[in-house]
Amino acid sequence: MNIVQELNEKQFDLHYINKYASLMAQGNGYLGLRASHEEHYAEQTRGMYIAGIYNKFTPNEATELVNLPDVIGMKIEINGEIFSLLTGTILSYDRSLNMLTGELTREVVWQSRSGERFRLTFQRFVSKDDLHLLASKVEVVSLDRNASIKIITGIDAQGSNFGKQHLHEENVRVLDKRIMQGIYKTSESNHTIAVATSCILGKESDISFGAKNRQLLGTITQELVVEQPFTLEKISSVYTSNDMLREDPASAAVNTVQKYLTEGYDNLRDSNTIKWQDFWKQKRVVVTTNEKMDQLAIDFSLYHIEVMTPAHDERFSVAAKGLTGEGYKGHVFWDTEIFIAPFHLFTDPEKAKKLLRYRYLHINEAKEKAATNGYEGTLFPWESAFTGKEETPEYAAINIITGQRQKVASALAEHHIVADIAYAVVQYYQNTLDEGFMAKEGLELLKETARFWISRATEDNGQLSIKDVIGPDEYTEHIDNNAYTNYMAYYNVQHALQYMEKFNDVDTDLIQKATDFLNRLYLPKPNDENIIPQDDTFLSKPEIDLTTYKQNQGSQGILLDYSRQEVNEMQILKQADVVMLLYLFPELFPEEVVKKNLQYYEEHTIHDSSLSKAIHAIVAARCGDQENSYRFFQEACLIDLGPNPKSSDEGLHAASLGANWLATIFGFANISMDINRLKISPKLPSEWEKLSFPFQWQGSVLSFTITHRSITVTKQSGPPLTIEINGEEFNLTDQLKTSL
Amino acid sequence: MNIVQELNEKQFDLHYINKYASLMAQGNGYLGLRASHEEHYAEQTRGMYIAGIYNKFTPNEATELVNLPDVIGMKIEINGEIFSLLTGTILSYDRSLNMLTGELTREVVWQSRSGERFRLTFQRFVSKDDLHLLASKVEVVSLDRNASIKIITGIDAQGSNFGKQHLHEENVRVLDKRIMQGIYKTSESNHTIAVATSCILGKESDISFGAKNRQLLGTITQELVVEQPFTLEKISSVYTSNDMLREDPASAAVNTVQKYLTEGYDNLRDSNTIKWQDFWKQKRVVVTTNEKMDQLAIDFSLYHIEVMTPAHDERFSVAAKGLTGEGYKGHVFWDTEIFIAPFHLFTDPEKAKKLLRYRYLHINEAKEKAATNGYEGTLFPWESAFTGKEETPEYAAINIITGQRQKVASALAEHHIVADIAYAVVQYYQNTLDEGFMAKEGLELLKETARFWISRATEDNGQLSIKDVIGPDEYTEHIDNNAYTNYMAYYNVQHALQYMEKFNDVDTDLIQKATDFLNRLYLPKPNDENIIPQDDTFLSKPEIDLTTYKQNQGSQGILLDYSRQEVNEMQILKQADVVMLLYLFPELFPEEVVKKNLQYYEEHTIHDSSLSKAIHAIVAARCGDQENSYRFFQEACLIDLGPNPKSSDEGLHAASLGANWLATIFGFANISMDINRLKISPKLPSEWEKLSFPFQWQGSVLSFTITHRSITVTKQSGPPLTIEINGEEFNLTDQLKTSL
Repeated sequence: MNIVQELNEKQFDLHYINKYASLMAQGNGYLGLRASHEEHYAEQTRGMYIAGIYNKFTPNEATELVNLPDVIGMKIEINGEIFSLLTGTILSYDRSLNMLTGELTREVVWQSRSGERFRLTFQRFVSKDDLHLLASKVEVVSLDRNASIKIITGIDAQGSNFGKQHLHEENVRVLDKRIMQGIYKTSESNHTIAVATSCILGKESDISFGAKNRQLLGTITQELVVEQPFTLEKISSVYTSNDMLREDPASAAVNTVQKYLTEGYDNLRDSNTIKWQDFWKQKRVVVTTNEKMDQLAIDFSLYHIEVMTPAHDERFSVAAKGLTGEGYKGHVFWDTEIFIAPFHLFTDPEKAKKLLRYRYLHINEAKEKAATNGYEGTLFPWESAFTGKEETPEYAAINIITGQRQKVASALAEHHIVADIAYAVVQYYQNTLDEGFMAKEGLELLKETARFWISRATEDNGQLSIKDVIGPDEYTEHIDNNAYTNYMAYYNVQHALQYMEKFNDVDTDLIQKATDFLNRLYLPKPNDENIIPQDDTFLSKPEIDLTTYKQNQGSQGILLDYSRQEVNEMQILKQADVVMLLYLFPELFPEEVVKKNLQYYEEHTIHDSSLSKAIHAIVAARCGDQENSYRFFQEACLIDLGPNPKSSDEGLHAASLGANWLATIFGFANISMDINRLKISPKLPSEWEKLSFPFQWQGSVLSFTITHRSITVTKQSGPPLTIEINGEEFNLTDQLKTSL
Repeated sequence: MNIVQELNEKQFDLHYINKYASLMAQGNGYLGLRASHEEHYAEQTRGMYIAGIYNKFTPNEATELVNLPDVIGMKIEINGEIFSLLTGTILSYDRSLNMLTGELTREVVWQSRSGERFRLTFQRFVSKDDLHLLASKVEVVSLDRNASIKIITGIDAQGSNFGKQHLHEENVRVLDKRIMQGIYKTSESNHTIAVATSCILGKESDISFGAKNRQLLGTITQELVVEQPFTLEKISSVYTSNDMLREDPASAAVNTVQKYLTEGYDNLRDSNTIKWQDFWKQKRVVVTTNEKMDQLAIDFSLYHIEVMTPAHDERFSVAAKGLTGEGYKGHVFWDTEIFIAPFHLFTDPEKAKKLLRYRYLHINEAKEKAATNGYEGTLFPWESAFTGKEETPEYAAINIITGQRQKVASALAEHHIVADIAYAVVQYYQNTLDEGFMAKEGLELLKETARFWISRATEDNGQLSIKDVIGPDEYTEHIDNNAYTNYMAYYNVQHALQYMEKFNDVDTDLIQKATDFLNRLYLPKPNDENIIPQDDTFLSKPEIDLTTYKQNQGSQGILLDYSRQEVNEMQILKQADVVMLLYLFPELFPEEVVKKNLQYYEEHTIHDSSLSKAIHAIVAARCGDQENSYRFFQEACLIDLGPNPKSSDEGLHAASLGANWLATIFGFANISMDINRLKISPKLPSEWEKLSFPFQWQGSVLSFTITHRSITVTKQSGPPLTIEINGEEFNLTDQLKTSL
């Protein structure tokens, strides 16, 4: 059986310490924990985050996901020598994230400077069974002779967001002489965070407690008898005032630790494993191929999407780096609706609904933002966090040469997010037929977003334009009639009208304005060379050779050679808007137009955005360009998993993880759908023998198995279904298999 | 010649990393810099502090000395390997603080993991010539073959006070493509701190700049040709809004760096050396002995007293840890007046005056504190910082078992500080005859402190008691008629009256009240066993065997076995109040009483306070108990310099440094004085052949040389002088030598 892959690190390398801390991060949507080592390294950025816990360090700074007190770190001294992989000799090192079980394990055989050998095994997990539980275990064996060990660990609140301390220590306690408890409060957002932890010692060891300088620590001393393992387990729990419990977070955390203490690490880990096994059973995409990286990358993507999605609570959404790091300050972008939500929509639609509910919850803040900016309807924030207000930093990082901070234009002009949310609403309804949601939240979202676009457009000689926007391609700012934005706005208003009709909403004023908008909105058409202009001026701008920049994709190296303004005035793309448009609307243009535009825009795209490659893979696959499609896919898989030691220091690229799944399902399997028809027309890479995946559509729970010779579709539940395979209609009752 | 000692560290040991960072700290009274290594270690606490720059992290917390952005740290990569003394092999290691020049030097020959050898030499100083200047230099030589080096360094504001971030980053810049500038503001006290730094590169190296996450860093890459040294110098400057300049701190810092850039490290270091040589020429105490530690300890004490005294500005005083760490939050205690000021008073009285001016500046805050507590006059704060208000934390650290925080009693009851300040005022006047100061600030301080004591006393059957105080011995709280406090209060009121008379101050009400106070105040007298009771109840309390606690002096281990309340109810002393009293008033009691009390109280004293041992040394010396005296002195010298790896992590024990000088001058040389008579009656330890030291008294600049056979006194300047040597009077014109 093709089992869920492990992510391995076979040697300790300080240069990669923070990349692997992101790659091997664990979590359960509520809590995210970076895979920092137990022992401390100056170069290491530790991190634990809870969905929704944000804070502003100063009133003028953007709110950010708060780095929480650490319960994983420990100082280990063996025979008086501080354990560090920098000292002594590493005789063996193996760290693996078992994505099947969610457990992170590290086994080290270490020879101290004085020559004795020790085997240290570290395990940990963040529970999928109880969102407030995390547990860790360390086992130490002295291999040569008796020795002594001292371990200092507890709750350490000295950490911060790169020096910005968001937490005030309110109280630290030791309860029943065994449970350490720390209570903290965010300085501005006033969230309480309660952390509790307790040590389970394999033998009767001494433990003494002390608190100082924001650390509450237990010190354990123990004699190590040669070859007899010494184990220390830590059962930890975190609650916050966001949790809406009857009991206070502090008691809840202590009670949780208390409850699980008797179970111990192994039992708790096993309960967690069962939950992860369920996940994989329901969600896994399986590829049969000799390219080992592909399956790993897909498992990795699904594992992390699951880890980072706060499915437990509609008040939170998925951040651009999930809960794996502090990049983008933990803010929520369009990435969620367009790149991440589809995985949930087509495997567990309730989760996708919760992500839309997150937007709906903040419809008033979006209305306020629209009004403040002189528009009607809802202008959703470009960056969103807990409050639903615009959280995009007002100013970019300071230009250290000029001393000036440039205003960040995204919040002012990257308005396509409004239509992206509307698109996700329609997509949700079309694939769930959830009338309850659509009649209320869905319709309101569609109408209010439509109102925004109607007010956003301006008239030129009777034709409506949408001016001064930024499309997904952030290297081209303040342009008029961005193809992506205009088509998305059209779709938005069109579907608002359509669902108003469906649900008998007779807002005649809106109907009239929307109809007029649709009649008059300018939609860029392919030119004589079949190129859809990205915006009014793009195609007239000069071109330069991008070869060297494309070789360093993701580095934004172009900005070292040219100012943002200069880049803006050339045909240089961070990611291709038009390709994005072609991806979202596969049938909008004939295949020759799609091909032509893919080729044209790819030539001008550096792919500095992590959202770029996988989308190109999809569009290329649909055009039958398997070679480029597969190359794009494989390159997209390297955004986090590739060799660049620093690419993921501040967290994983959440959207690219979602995009890898999109590429597999909507590119290689090439699924598409009308309102009442599921279609599949596989474009399997020649490197892949077989692709299997689950897929939910309009209440049917399906699974597909695709080879180069056949497609098998199995329906586990749901109503009878017509499915179109390579243009041919089939009725699906339980299972059908068709040769290609 | 007996030259000023070097403090050496001959091997790198992670356990000692923070102790040596304190021991080898540098500074100039304005700025203090811990001797943290350039490269980063997780266990290392970096620190740079400026006198007077305090901040409260939260409104409820005590203000603390702010850990400032770091300009010393650097990340060094050689052939892609991160330089750390934990990795590879240390072929040689030598670090020394040259106290003669103020320069810290570290030379390491390091073999990387891949086997190449490199010699790295690090130098740095904090300028005594320009208080705002600090400079550092690193030289790297590849010993085996050509190599490449990358150094990343600049201004790093990620550091904090153990997780508490006091600084907001206001701006970071690179000026003229070479000077990095960072501007920060304390969050509550609103001080601006401007830091500027620039790199001087030995060869034409590439330097590129970047700013992110509170770090403004330059990256230097360079090929290392075998055996050809590569050097990098950093010229750095710090100013604050406290500096009261015409220009803003940011410009001042940049201009300072600009000004010194062309000079380079070596020239600037030489200017600094000259200032330190001047210091030693004027202030040094020289001991001829085979006990090498003694001279080192005395040089160490004087070096650090000089480094920690903010002699440039009377708005600041000396903190309990100087500027070497964050212990006691950088607050100013009675330590300054009683333990540190005398060194200045008798070698450079202007500095002692500034320390008294610091108190005088805050006389209104002291009046407010008195009034708030229901007293008259001035109640100076037990802990003082920038504002002059009481800064003692209201609550002690939380009791992690009970969850309760105990109120800190010191601010409420450790009132002897009021008289300690008055004592220092009188001592200052008696030894300088500074009529200008005494007529105004001095007299006002004496009167207001006297008023405090008069209001503080309560009547019992016609006798006045001072109740519910804490004396210097903090293991005995809330006691009545503490001998130290009562005698000091008496001295205080007595001298207020005396100087009122001298300066014709006819405040009849105060005169009457003061006279009454002196007539009626209870002063504990020696009992039948000649023991002066420390307070009303002390001698009736039970005694326990303190042997084991005395063996772990300084650890406060007694508090692990007994509660504070239990300790309070036994005859257990942290330091001996009565011995302290005997030290300050050598002629108050006959020698047999002194001897008896020294012996009695020493038996009951754990010496958990760093203020204890050296004072015992003095009193024992005066009693002729040379053996114990010298033993106490040597043990006192080990408070920071001893083998305990953690004793000085949070900074040096400033008072104990001052006390070492006191022990030498007032113990071994046994100088004392009446109002118009200088007396000396040496008690040189048998281990010392010779002791030489400078001494200023009533305008005369003297130097003494004492052996077991003779005393030589030289007067460099000042009026004719009568000096009493071993009870015999001598007239001193230029020099006199007398046999013993």
